[in-house]
Amino acid sequence: MDAAELWKRYCQYLCRVESLDLSLDISRMHFDEGFLASMEPGMQRAFAEMNELERGGIANPDEQRMVGHYWLRAPQLAPTHEIAKEISATLDAVKKFAANVHAGKIKPATAPCFAHVLAIGIGGSALGPMFVADALGNPSADSMQMHFIDNTDPDGIARVLDILEERLPEVLCIVTSKSGGTPDTRNGMVLVADAYRAAGLQFARHAVAITMPGSHLDQLAQSEKWLARFPMFDWVGGRTSELSAVGLLPAALQGIDVDAMLAGAAMCDAVTRVHETRRNPAALMALMWYAATGGKGQKDLVVLPYKDRLLLFSRYLQQLVMESLGKQLDLDGRRVEQGLAVYGNKGSTDQHAFVQQLRDGVNNFFVTFIRVLEAGGAPTEVEPGITAGDYLHGFLLGTREALYGNDRQSMTITVPRVEPRTVGALIALFERAVGFYASLVHINAYHQPGVEAGKKAAAAVLSLQAKAVAALSGTPQTAEQIAAAIGAGPSVETVFWVLEHLTANGKAKMARAAESPLTRFTRA
Amino acid sequence: MDAAELWKRYCQYLCRVESLDLSLDISRMHFDEGFLASMEPGMQRAFAEMNELERGGIANPDEQRMVGHYWLRAPQLAPTHEIAKEISATLDAVKKFAANVHAGKIKPATAPCFAHVLAIGIGGSALGPMFVADALGNPSADSMQMHFIDNTDPDGIARVLDILEERLPEVLCIVTSKSGGTPDTRNGMVLVADAYRAAGLQFARHAVAITMPGSHLDQLAQSEKWLARFPMFDWVGGRTSELSAVGLLPAALQGIDVDAMLAGAAMCDAVTRVHETRRNPAALMALMWYAATGGKGQKDLVVLPYKDRLLLFSRYLQQLVMESLGKQLDLDGRRVEQGLAVYGNKGSTDQHAFVQQLRDGVNNFFVTFIRVLEAGGAPTEVEPGITAGDYLHGFLLGTREALYGNDRQSMTITVPRVEPRTVGALIALFERAVGFYASLVHINAYHQPGVEAGKKAAAAVLSLQAKAVAALSGTPQTAEQIAAAIGAGPSVETVFWVLEHLTANGKAKMARAAESPLTRFTRA
Repeated sequence: MDAAELWKRYCQYLCRVESLDLSLDISRMHFDEGFLASMEPGMQRAFAEMNELERGGIANPDEQRMVGHYWLRAPQLAPTHEIAKEISATLDAVKKFAANVHAGKIKPATAPCFAHVLAIGIGGSALGPMFVADALGNPSADSMQMHFIDNTDPDGIARVLDILEERLPEVLCIVTSKSGGTPDTRNGMVLVADAYRAAGLQFARHAVAITMPGSHLDQLAQSEKWLARFPMFDWVGGRTSELSAVGLLPAALQGIDVDAMLAGAAMCDAVTRVHETRRNPAALMALMWYAATGGKGQKDLVVLPYKDRLLLFSRYLQQLVMESLGKQLDLDGRRVEQGLAVYGNKGSTDQHAFVQQLRDGVNNFFVTFIRVLEAGGAPTEVEPGITAGDYLHGFLLGTREALYGNDRQSMTITVPRVEPRTVGALIALFERAVGFYASLVHINAYHQPGVEAGKKAAAAVLSLQAKAVAALSGTPQTAEQIAAAIGAGPSVETVFWVLEHLTANGKAKMARAAESPLTRFTRA
Repeated sequence: MDAAELWKRYCQYLCRVESLDLSLDISRMHFDEGFLASMEPGMQRAFAEMNELERGGIANPDEQRMVGHYWLRAPQLAPTHEIAKEISATLDAVKKFAANVHAGKIKPATAPCFAHVLAIGIGGSALGPMFVADALGNPSADSMQMHFIDNTDPDGIARVLDILEERLPEVLCIVTSKSGGTPDTRNGMVLVADAYRAAGLQFARHAVAITMPGSHLDQLAQSEKWLARFPMFDWVGGRTSELSAVGLLPAALQGIDVDAMLAGAAMCDAVTRVHETRRNPAALMALMWYAATGGKGQKDLVVLPYKDRLLLFSRYLQQLVMESLGKQLDLDGRRVEQGLAVYGNKGSTDQHAFVQQLRDGVNNFFVTFIRVLEAGGAPTEVEPGITAGDYLHGFLLGTREALYGNDRQSMTITVPRVEPRTVGALIALFERAVGFYASLVHINAYHQPGVEAGKKAAAAVLSLQAKAVAALSGTPQTAEQIAAAIGAGPSVETVFWVLEHLTANGKAKMARAAESPLTRFTRA
């Protein structure tokens, strides 16, 4: 297609959302009118299924749950008055709590005010808060400074605590766990509570819980009289919880306008409820994913925002997209092994990293550029008439063109600037595209059965570890002997790995032989 | 395969490097002895080609260059005495400069010492230094605090400067650009120099250049009398420059033991020079990449280190692997569109993000786990007898097992701890695996011809922008009219995008019409 035809195609398919000043360009994706027409029945089914979901139908059949993240920004649409009230009351409580912390009405015992937030959570309880904190924060101006613990790595936890050490008296700690039983988060909490104790502080006077009412965490927070407890809802999944208390509380504490985030999401929801495919950017995105991947995840989605603030967006989307769409079975129980792999960091930085492969190498991806119109920062000219922001924009266009010139597909989302409204809208846009795509390929986007197997296997490893420790003695034994002694003969490899780990951490001694089966272990 | 057979396979194929206390487990990859035998002639060719490269042959034929990153940690192997001397002299200069900065012998004019490093660079001049700073840093104990500018985003640059504002008198600024002409880096430098000026400081008294001798940047640094200049070499590519001055200077300033990093890399180089495939972990890795992807990049490489400090390793590897292997043509000029896509963050965090898809969804990847034996941090028990680190290790094993149970492949690299020696070894291990794999698939791993197209297109966009600005007037004109007026009729779409960008940045005014071709622009 020559440049004139491309301009025509650009104008023909541009989907512009006036209310958000947001647009989606799909002209550089491979599809034609025939494709859109052929997909229209499926797309209309997706609209109908989304309607049903928003009305409170059981959209997650495996877990017999409603799926209600869209109500979080439009409580009036919730299926019951009780749910609407819960949403509004939580939002009010979040804003009031943040205002009281900022005003020093809620304050620590040994410092004049809380100046730092330490958020402990993992997965959906970390990725959204981390993305938003980085996208919308300005460390020198934020109301509070943000810190995160998102793993059960004691060294990683120690490093965060080390930075906070002297400031611990003014650190507010949020513990977020929907079930209240996620071990990674519980472990972080235990180590952090220890650090408060070591500093002569009462953890409970610094702690806030975000969890399902009645969970173990909720009960703990209640019994220890933590500063506050905020609810998570059965009908909001972790990966779509950014606009629940999970994301709103840390954002409000940081000083981010959470009402604007919610309004941006609500506006995006409104325009993506339209059943006219060509005017619905979420529908078009889902269709383009289908066109690019054959509806089978045959290409990866590379996310390239040309803006430092959106660096963590692709990591956020990895969870939203891959955990939602990466499914073994479809809704009829057929084995489909669906999915859509997501990666990317930011432009133009990634041009100096992996765009070489995108342009020249294996053609197993399509790009979603995010174009931010306002450059921000200093308007300094780096050459006569040209700013650093002009370069950034020029690089985006140049890469889009170079990829297209070599038969590589891309979409471009254009937004005016990175502000709370835009971030809310981008989250809502991808949430709905994921929902539509799941309908198109007939899968449940709202469960995650595949993570159980790893959790169960990990629990078995810890149980083996305890038995292996007990079986160690002063007499050198091989892993095979120890495995046999603890009745875990078939798991000898796991026992061997566990013994290596125990040795490295001072709980066993090892005389390593060249052949692993001959390596012997004793009590430390 | 049952557990007993897997244990046998694990023992059979385990590649353990005694000197580094490092091992590579390939038992969960799909291959058999027949595969290794069939690849042996190709592997031996790869060894021979690597020998040739290390001896100073023209290993990058397109650019007629030697490829010498292995000499950086073994100058005695350099093909000429002059090169060996350059390497040693640079290392000495780096260490001496860092020692002088730490001792306050090299100090700023208006503060007692340099306490912060601001490193400006992109691609190979940023990814390695950022990875190493995060992997080996301990902010509360480091000699200097590290900050990075790695993009031409004025907002991103402003945010970094904002954090440093009051500390600018004690900020040492490193500008790294091999050619000295990378616009992203130049733009960062211009904005940073402006900030120093605005603070009443002389940028030159805070600035250090790392660049090719004689480059534009080198000349600038010389004429302005910067604090120091360190050389980059024609025979070291950006993506393999971490163990040149590019990576060593920031690391030394941070207080990291650069000799230990170099020693780790040198030891890994020594063991991966062995021509006995089964004892060479880099050779086995390259062969596993081949086995998994059919030698055609048909699966993605997912990097999952179970350790917070290694979070940025996958981003570092994205460049090293994808820029090296993502090639259109093979060495005979045949169109092959090679590559190997890389993504991943860290475990167990990613288990709560995208492992759902890895286990259940589209089977288009293989995992490389990185297992760190020492847990570090506090040995606090989170349950009787169990630490947070035991959980981390258990999750790795559990996920490896759950993936294998569903026919997903993985490798595991085990290292004792994250320390300078390990980091140097990991870098060297992947560098050599990339080189071997390139030989196996017969491509040039050391050039990046594909990035030129995007750069050229970007330059054309900036040139169009200048003309479009000049063509704006008080009379409303459409993009088509402006494009015609500046003799860029076919590029009307680019002109339209540029005009939108100019409008958002105060350099044009727009009366947007529902139809893009009818949108009109005037002078601001």
